[in-house]
Amino acid sequence: MMKRTLAVPKNPKVAFQGEPGSFSQQAAKKIFGSKLIAVSCYTPDNVFEAVVRKRAEFAVIPIENTLAGSIYQNFDLLARHSLVVVAETSLRIEHNLIAHRGVSFRQIRKVYSHPAALEQCSRFLRRCKTIETVSFYNTAGSVKFIYDRELKNAAAIASADAARIYGMKIVRPGIEDDRENYTRFLVLARRGRFPRGGEKTSVVFGLENQPGVLFKALSVFALRNIDLVKIESRPIRGKPWEYLFYIDLQSDIRSRECIHALRHLRELAPYLKVIGSYPVI
Amino acid sequence: MMKRTLAVPKNPKVAFQGEPGSFSQQAAKKIFGSKLIAVSCYTPDNVFEAVVRKRAEFAVIPIENTLAGSIYQNFDLLARHSLVVVAETSLRIEHNLIAHRGVSFRQIRKVYSHPAALEQCSRFLRRCKTIETVSFYNTAGSVKFIYDRELKNAAAIASADAARIYGMKIVRPGIEDDRENYTRFLVLARRGRFPRGGEKTSVVFGLENQPGVLFKALSVFALRNIDLVKIESRPIRGKPWEYLFYIDLQSDIRSRECIHALRHLRELAPYLKVIGSYPVI
Repeated sequence: MMKRTLAVPKNPKVAFQGEPGSFSQQAAKKIFGSKLIAVSCYTPDNVFEAVVRKRAEFAVIPIENTLAGSIYQNFDLLARHSLVVVAETSLRIEHNLIAHRGVSFRQIRKVYSHPAALEQCSRFLRRCKTIETVSFYNTAGSVKFIYDRELKNAAAIASADAARIYGMKIVRPGIEDDRENYTRFLVLARRGRFPRGGEKTSVVFGLENQPGVLFKALSVFALRNIDLVKIESRPIRGKPWEYLFYIDLQSDIRSRECIHALRHLRELAPYLKVIGSYPVI
Repeated sequence: MMKRTLAVPKNPKVAFQGEPGSFSQQAAKKIFGSKLIAVSCYTPDNVFEAVVRKRAEFAVIPIENTLAGSIYQNFDLLARHSLVVVAETSLRIEHNLIAHRGVSFRQIRKVYSHPAALEQCSRFLRRCKTIETVSFYNTAGSVKFIYDRELKNAAAIASADAARIYGMKIVRPGIEDDRENYTRFLVLARRGRFPRGGEKTSVVFGLENQPGVLFKALSVFALRNIDLVKIESRPIRGKPWEYLFYIDLQSDIRSRECIHALRHLRELAPYLKVIGSYPVI
């Protein structure tokens, strides 16, 4: 796959969830370099709002992990807000058990981290029968928490970067369940023209509640040899057992086949929104 | 839809997650009546293991909620274990903010509940800016927790049943984001013959990584007019960006069209497992 870059201003303001050393910050650095101005946010909602309310020009959000699966909250936020995806990137995720210097593994009674990180390390944590896990809003934030409170019988799960930033010790490196641990991140911006040379196009749509309708919806791409690389479904509030479908296509929205396929999909889908057409960086 | 019942022994041992008053227990009572012998479990893994290791004859697990979406952990456990679905049921879920008698809403600083319940009440909780939320393993268990510890500045989110069992007060009733809040539950048993008169059939399968292959897999049902009522995808560990697909069909596995469709699917799917064919109760 050809590596592309994104045209960006000199010192872009980039919103992401969590503290310095978080994986979202690492993804932001991979895309924007070290000259980005970080807009650190507490919740995923805050990340979207930072761009909507123009406190940031871009947002970087995790969307899917190879061990834990989709980050469903961010799918819901993509449908609710009118931001667009302008780029995608992925990172290999290595998790470390991090504690204060001088703390040994045996002293640890509680492990703090983001629920997705805890899930990616679930095999390791199941073996530690005397350790209790505590969900925290962010991986790097959990390191900051045990650092600030000087907790000596606790550890955090986060990146080696986060350990370095707070001068903490890695008690156990690489504790993720499987080395093939990657997270895909999306770069979001306010609505504008789609960047040229998009490799992928993402759409979200809702369908009438009729037999065979999802099959018909997917046929608009199959009939035009457009490859579907990801499908996700999420419930629609107020309509029990009806879904919004999110799909990623290996196609540029400016291509003839994609234009025709989306026009065809509109015939079937009362609700259809293009989330973006973007390069993979 | 015709209401059916399940043939069960007189005092069935039924495993479910959580404490008395949990929604899983209510679903178990709906299916098995009040003569069931409860095998109360701490984690979803424990629920599956209770049946595998014959400490229980049945398990009742939540699989999908109309506000929060699929309970992904239970999908993963269905693929990992070799239990089968023998029935499905659903419950309307009403959440209540529960505290000790004498505690007023203004005194509450922390709210404990299962993450899915917190998500189903996220609008209510966003409005309570001074309240911190804490993830707990079970809704009814969070009531028990604040009861046992005599926490006076805390509340739990759970069923009215759970409040009654522990003699606690409902401070705010019906705090779920939307009244259309239902959870589907599955009843699991060890492998045996599928119950007769199944209305739904569930399968999990993996596909070769080829363009258009999901479309082909869904065509085996569409070509035979079998209605697909739910599709879910989950990552495969060790194979980044490849998925297992879980689908629910409105069809009895003993019907001619279902037999043919699954034989057809086997041509395309290197991995295919029937999770169950079952009545909706």
